[in-house]
Amino acid sequence: MGRPVAKLFNAEALAAELGAPFIGDGSVLITSVASLGVATPGDLTFFSDPKHRQAALSSTASVMIVREADAHAVAGVRIIHPAPHTAFARALDLLFPAPAHVATVSDRAQVAASAQVTGARVDAFSSVGHNSIVGAGTAIHGQVFVGDDVVIGENCVLHPGVRILAGVRVGHRCIIHAGAVLGADGFGFQPTRDGWHKVAQVGTVVVGNDVEIGANTTIDRGAIEDTVIGNGVKIDNLVQIAHNVQIGDHTAIAGCTGIAGSSTIGARCMIGGAAMIIGHLSICDDVIVSGGTLIATSITEPGRYTGVFPTTTHRDWTKIAGRLRRLIKLPVR
Amino acid sequence: MGRPVAKLFNAEALAAELGAPFIGDGSVLITSVASLGVATPGDLTFFSDPKHRQAALSSTASVMIVREADAHAVAGVRIIHPAPHTAFARALDLLFPAPAHVATVSDRAQVAASAQVTGARVDAFSSVGHNSIVGAGTAIHGQVFVGDDVVIGENCVLHPGVRILAGVRVGHRCIIHAGAVLGADGFGFQPTRDGWHKVAQVGTVVVGNDVEIGANTTIDRGAIEDTVIGNGVKIDNLVQIAHNVQIGDHTAIAGCTGIAGSSTIGARCMIGGAAMIIGHLSICDDVIVSGGTLIATSITEPGRYTGVFPTTTHRDWTKIAGRLRRLIKLPVR
Amino acid sequence: MGRPVAKLFNAEALAAELGAPFIGDGSVLITSVASLGVATPGDLTFFSDPKHRQAALSSTASVMIVREADAHAVAGVRIIHPAPHTAFARALDLLFPAPAHVATVSDRAQVAASAQVTGARVDAFSSVGHNSIVGAGTAIHGQVFVGDDVVIGENCVLHPGVRILAGVRVGHRCIIHAGAVLGADGFGFQPTRDGWHKVAQVGTVVVGNDVEIGANTTIDRGAIEDTVIGNGVKIDNLVQIAHNVQIGDHTAIAGCTGIAGSSTIGARCMIGGAAMIIGHLSICDDVIVSGGTLIATSITEPGRYTGVFPTTTHRDWTKIAGRLRRLIKLPVR
Repeated sequence: MGRPVAKLFNAEALAAELGAPFIGDGSVLITSVASLGVATPGDLTFFSDPKHRQAALSSTASVMIVREADAHAVAGVRIIHPAPHTAFARALDLLFPAPAHVATVSDRAQVAASAQVTGARVDAFSSVGHNSIVGAGTAIHGQVFVGDDVVIGENCVLHPGVRILAGVRVGHRCIIHAGAVLGADGFGFQPTRDGWHKVAQVGTVVVGNDVEIGANTTIDRGAIEDTVIGNGVKIDNLVQIAHNVQIGDHTAIAGCTGIAGSSTIGARCMIGGAAMIIGHLSICDDVIVSGGTLIATSITEPGRYTGVFPTTTHRDWTKIAGRLRRLIKLPVR
Repeated sequence: MGRPVAKLFNAEALAAELGAPFIGDGSVLITSVASLGVATPGDLTFFSDPKHRQAALSSTASVMIVREADAHAVAGVRIIHPAPHTAFARALDLLFPAPAHVATVSDRAQVAASAQVTGARVDAFSSVGHNSIVGAGTAIHGQVFVGDDVVIGENCVLHPGVRILAGVRVGHRCIIHAGAVLGADGFGFQPTRDGWHKVAQVGTVVVGNDVEIGANTTIDRGAIEDTVIGNGVKIDNLVQIAHNVQIGDHTAIAGCTGIAGSSTIGARCMIGGAAMIIGHLSICDDVIVSGGTLIATSITEPGRYTGVFPTTTHRDWTKIAGRLRRLIKLPVR
Repeated sequence: MGRPVAKLFNAEALAAELGAPFIGDGSVLITSVASLGVATPGDLTFFSDPKHRQAALSSTASVMIVREADAHAVAGVRIIHPAPHTAFARALDLLFPAPAHVATVSDRAQVAASAQVTGARVDAFSSVGHNSIVGAGTAIHGQVFVGDDVVIGENCVLHPGVRILAGVRVGHRCIIHAGAVLGADGFGFQPTRDGWHKVAQVGTVVVGNDVEIGANTTIDRGAIEDTVIGNGVKIDNLVQIAHNVQIGDHTAIAGCTGIAGSSTIGARCMIGGAAMIIGHLSICDDVIVSGGTLIATSITEPGRYTGVFPTTTHRDWTKIAGRLRRLIKLPVR
């Protein structure tokens, strides 16, 4: 049996919610979900990728979302949809609905008298600072820190251990995962005879609507102006976004990536895992950066950019690296 | 004087515990430990690596663990062992025993009425959610979040600020370091005309026995099935493990590494620091990945794999990089 | 209008504090600050970089810090200073003074009876362990964990969620940002027939004076001796510093960098973002490591070192990578 659902549907009711026709016994109950390769009776699954055809043919899943062209090749109840993967994702939203919002403030939370948290939930060991505003429908889980003069929109979720420091502004429907830090000081210093002199970081962080920010990710406040995260931006875990960075709407950034200070990333970009973008650059809209790639100059043309040393056995690598070092002794052509 | 010990032994008693013979005055008290190069009277140290021979000959350490062949070249009390480094590590366990477990729940902790924490310790500002089970002998340090429906085995240590989110299961004798996050949502979205649609992440994280997880490391819950960490796996700090990853028994992963979604890592692998493993790959058992290496294809043969640009002076690097760019203009041989 | 100031100055009073002459109406009030390109009336700004000359000429900022040579080309009140950027940073310290220190311990904090926190501030849900000492003027923000036997100097700031584990020592005037972890166990294991055996990590972390440590950065305790961070060192976010590392005075380390175990970094080094330094190396003073560079051998000469694959379009990269793989089939010259 796969993952037990939180809410029961039969095949007919689910198909109706998805606006999709079905074939077979519509009264079959969906009690759990699973991927195609491991689904068993009781499960809802989906078949989309042709390379899983063999698994689809032999599947014992009770209900399968399939394309019309595949519907007659597979057994069990079939829900017919032109984009099975998308329909399955919508089904998950129905089968695992978000728990009802209960707007209570734990007596083990600390909310400043001047803060407004009407309609929000604040769990144990969390604090909300002076003059901060938390929108209705927002859930502040346990051990979250919301500093002074912060604004959090409506229907957000702040998972345990999130830190939103003074003055940061977050839009509506944002999800911020455990341990993320928004609004720490940017890394700004000036050299002096006595070492580094800290430059006060007086900007803040402004996050748009529908943004998701991963666990233990850090987004620094601006030096003078703000660090700005656009609407619909999705940021994975352990990403570092430095001061004054601006990220355009609907850009997605995978884990372990670093974006250095004052760089501007366009809209709808996709930045692969462990990429590194140097400071003071400008990346235009619709750029794809491959994982592990360091971007050291601005990019003005959409497209995919890559810079990764090809991986081989260590033995072959030592040969390649040796030849490469010798390249500087070759004459320039 | 080196690091003062927590429990006093004389040389004879320690040698007996190690099952090793000794030479010299067995009544000499071990009051501290130090590395060979800095050890002074009172210290226990060890001599294993031949390149430290000169330091061994001139050492004033009170007690030294040495191989038999070296025993007569050095002064002080000698404990004879064929693997001095290993014996020293065992000695540390004796000289610095774990503090006695006291199964108390702080009155500043919040434990749900339906949770079972019998025999466990729960410190201040920590919380344990509904229906969660924490095994006997487990220590939950301060400011730890344990969500609902979590299972933690026996004799684990959860250091301050660890977050174990709903439904995660952790085996016995695991050590999870400060700030680690287990069970945040995987990074799963579908493109739509209106931007990214979040795909519900309904799997969880399952951690085996004897696993150690580093500070501020993140391990995401599975999308449908689970993210699985095998027995005896050791994960360093600031490592990102994405949804549906599976890690085989006794694999070790060094700091700053990222493993993207749905990749499978075999048993007994060693992944170097700041490596990056792309998603949906399979790495077989007994693979060594060099630090800083990006793995972009599956690996089916054990061995060591590397892909790192050779580092030189910046001046030489600009020459190599320039020649490299010119490579695409060379005729294909 | 730019960022509103916390303390009002007129141009004359600010110039006097900076020890700088001014031109124009000294009674003009500075109500906010902004960068040159976006400054409007009420703002203080500065003009330093010649490529911003056009913005300077058309600026409507009320007060501008400029070099003498530029003073007559721009409008508004001008404060004359040979290093406008430096003077502006000093002005920020005056316009945004640190809030007055209030030495109070929240009744929602937990401070051990044997701890000394006289003159320090401890906010809600923070704890200070047995025998720990926190210096006067130090602010421990909310949700901070200070373990047993810790020493924190005077006038430090520990931001929310910082974890300082048992025995760690921090100097004076240090700033530690949210979620940083000091003193987690180093990643030390010995291979055995039954898997990895944990080697007790009995050292600690010693941090000098005037050190800044970024959000969610991790610094592990030493295995036997200590991990040592020198005076004036600045460390950015999400940096991993492994056990027994030593960092020389005034070295700066940018975000996402990893420094593996037992490596020694000299004084006044600058380590770029997402660099990786392998273990057991020695880097001399005054070394610059470019972002994204892996250092695999010791460095004995000051200078800049780089090792990054040049980034191009993905299409060109596949050509370069292909030729590179073919290099191992070329005859050795």
